[in-house]
Amino acid sequence: MDSVMRREMEGFKTLTNLDKALQTLAEVLKNYEKKGLEIVPLLESIGRICGEDISAPFDIPSFDRSAVDGYAVYAEDTFSASPSNPVELRLVGCLKPGEDPALIKISRGETVEVMTGAPLPINANSVVMAEDAKRVKADLIEVYKQVHPFQNVSRKGEDFRRGEIVIRKGARIKPWHIGALASFNIETVKVVLKPRVGILSTGSELVELGSDLKPGKVVNSSKVMLKALIYSCGGEPVDLGIVEDDVDSIVEKILNGIKTCDVLVTTGGTSVGRGDLVPDAVNQIGKVLVHGIAMRPGKPTGFGIVKGKLVFMLSGFPVASLIGFNLFVKPVIEAMLGTVSEPSIKVRGRLNRRVASLSGMRSFVRVRVIKNGDGYIIEPLMLTGSGLISTLTEANGLLVIPENLEGYDEGEEVEVELFDPIIFTGHNEDRR
Amino acid sequence: MDSVMRREMEGFKTLTNLDKALQTLAEVLKNYEKKGLEIVPLLESIGRICGEDISAPFDIPSFDRSAVDGYAVYAEDTFSASPSNPVELRLVGCLKPGEDPALIKISRGETVEVMTGAPLPINANSVVMAEDAKRVKADLIEVYKQVHPFQNVSRKGEDFRRGEIVIRKGARIKPWHIGALASFNIETVKVVLKPRVGILSTGSELVELGSDLKPGKVVNSSKVMLKALIYSCGGEPVDLGIVEDDVDSIVEKILNGIKTCDVLVTTGGTSVGRGDLVPDAVNQIGKVLVHGIAMRPGKPTGFGIVKGKLVFMLSGFPVASLIGFNLFVKPVIEAMLGTVSEPSIKVRGRLNRRVASLSGMRSFVRVRVIKNGDGYIIEPLMLTGSGLISTLTEANGLLVIPENLEGYDEGEEVEVELFDPIIFTGHNEDRR
Repeated sequence: MDSVMRREMEGFKTLTNLDKALQTLAEVLKNYEKKGLEIVPLLESIGRICGEDISAPFDIPSFDRSAVDGYAVYAEDTFSASPSNPVELRLVGCLKPGEDPALIKISRGETVEVMTGAPLPINANSVVMAEDAKRVKADLIEVYKQVHPFQNVSRKGEDFRRGEIVIRKGARIKPWHIGALASFNIETVKVVLKPRVGILSTGSELVELGSDLKPGKVVNSSKVMLKALIYSCGGEPVDLGIVEDDVDSIVEKILNGIKTCDVLVTTGGTSVGRGDLVPDAVNQIGKVLVHGIAMRPGKPTGFGIVKGKLVFMLSGFPVASLIGFNLFVKPVIEAMLGTVSEPSIKVRGRLNRRVASLSGMRSFVRVRVIKNGDGYIIEPLMLTGSGLISTLTEANGLLVIPENLEGYDEGEEVEVELFDPIIFTGHNEDRR
Repeated sequence: MDSVMRREMEGFKTLTNLDKALQTLAEVLKNYEKKGLEIVPLLESIGRICGEDISAPFDIPSFDRSAVDGYAVYAEDTFSASPSNPVELRLVGCLKPGEDPALIKISRGETVEVMTGAPLPINANSVVMAEDAKRVKADLIEVYKQVHPFQNVSRKGEDFRRGEIVIRKGARIKPWHIGALASFNIETVKVVLKPRVGILSTGSELVELGSDLKPGKVVNSSKVMLKALIYSCGGEPVDLGIVEDDVDSIVEKILNGIKTCDVLVTTGGTSVGRGDLVPDAVNQIGKVLVHGIAMRPGKPTGFGIVKGKLVFMLSGFPVASLIGFNLFVKPVIEAMLGTVSEPSIKVRGRLNRRVASLSGMRSFVRVRVIKNGDGYIIEPLMLTGSGLISTLTEANGLLVIPENLEGYDEGEEVEVELFDPIIFTGHNEDRR
């Protein structure tokens, strides 16, 4: 074992393989309680998770309507029509969009003028386009072209048939779902309650945002970022404050937190020097399932169960806590919501320098993806440094190096996940 | 000109090429007024557009701190250290994270025990890892390995140097930006005000969501969807109601709307049968720049300028209005915000059936992207039917067919934009 590996292992008898850790989590999630539902106004449901299958309460269109401007007819009346041998029809009225179709009915040999979107009069089964007919008298038109039944008609139920599913349970509600539900005059939606995610920060050096920053102190920025992350993936962050580096205090805070939260996230207090405070606390009142994962950054990441609730132990360092959150906490929030992740954006490009990784560890490297002609340049930022949040604000992508590789060479093509717009070398105009 | 093309052209002397229409819009946007700024609490700034370059007010880390558990030393004192020839140092104290570094200083031959994250004591320039030293007496340690200056130290300013840009004007604020700003104890951010986008709906058949749906009437679902779209891309929707199919009434509503809105969106009243009501109204009080675009759906789309403000004329049909919104209105909102679009997700796959398109028109085809082994199947939904919102709720992607093609063959590989998670043929477990 080389010295780097020895150092990586320090304090952890064994590091759990990342996939194995995720598998352990997936097992727990199989029986993890899903959230209940709440009713919200339609427009406020955007981005929330639909709590039930919603089926169409009626057909849409709810009546046969004209797809063109023209004349509603019995198709059969037009079968012999041609430019040289037009069919004459008696004009008995006009229907505009929004008017009640029951207002007018036609008999054979009759027609009604209709505008696009207007309902068909009773008995009409098709529409002759305005350009294929001519008004020859006030109450008479000539038709120059035959139409077949239901030609130029948007049929009742053509878009949605009554009883058809409009949106499924578990779908993330998008603007077009809202449009579709509005078509059915649906004003409220049952959505899944937001999972409550408690955040408990450990670290004697931490002070709250806005505090007086005395020498040696640092702002608890990981907590603020975690709150934003929890919001972003549909959870509700619950601030459990900062707890001192003391097992009994941590135990008390965790026990209090799980009373009102569905899942708990702790930061800090999991590396060896800090005395494994959080894992010790979790083991006193529950059971640590995973602690120490073969990943960089985020090696001290772990999780356990306390009184049936998941407690995640994330690094106190911002980048490590972000990666730990995305790998472990986000899937739990989604599972409680009964939904799946939004698709992620992948881009392939060539590395502009070598990037080394430790065999046996999965590495998450922040990169800058830069547009270069038709391709992309991938520039790796700091490989180490779990605390370097600047690598996140400078990066727009993440490169994952699997355990069986020792890195990638300069010029090698890799796929990265994009989390911010691509950086352009050219002019601003090229940006789209 | 074939009959389909003739029908497509109906009522429009010429259809404007889509790129040309977008170019016309880009010209207008060069001088379009940007929005001002407002100050919001840090956590509420998520997703908003940063209104100014924010530079680091101090170094981060703000002090040299230990990256490991061990002993802070003069590196020079360890230069001869080896397992067989350890160096003895006098232990003069201990520093924990959060403690003031000014509490302790060391002289040559002295050391201070430090935990990860603790500040270095005055004069120390490096840290010997705990495993490379041994405490042999209460106040004496032996060092077995030399360290070079600043080894195992996170240097002051290593993450951010004072004055360095943390987030740039125009960036969409993400959780990691919030984390970085929090590190600097920054509690509020100047963000760009949300552009106010007025929505004016025309159509005598329309009723508001929640109204009594009499025969022939339809809910104004496009408006509800547009509101959700405007929210989603950072604007503030302003509901200007439904206006009757009458030019004077439309003129009045537009004039009123632009008093309080930055941009206006109208729906309906732009196709020929409805008498070009909105274009006529716009031309009475301003100038229509584009009306009738060579695209499907959304041919009657257009825009003009009234008293310096952009007025967009979208189709009243949901799908056409969605596509018109994304092509024309979203870029205006982003321009007023001074930002660029989030990256879109592209997927390549094979079409499972032929999809036809009209040469000279750009077509936007809703598709279902289905995972199939290692690849993707692209299933085109209805090509025509600008009103068929079910093609949006059933689709998860959009295929764009350029003007110079007449479609794609079955089995052809195409690239589509993904707007919802990919559909899996397998089990739910495979979904990630």
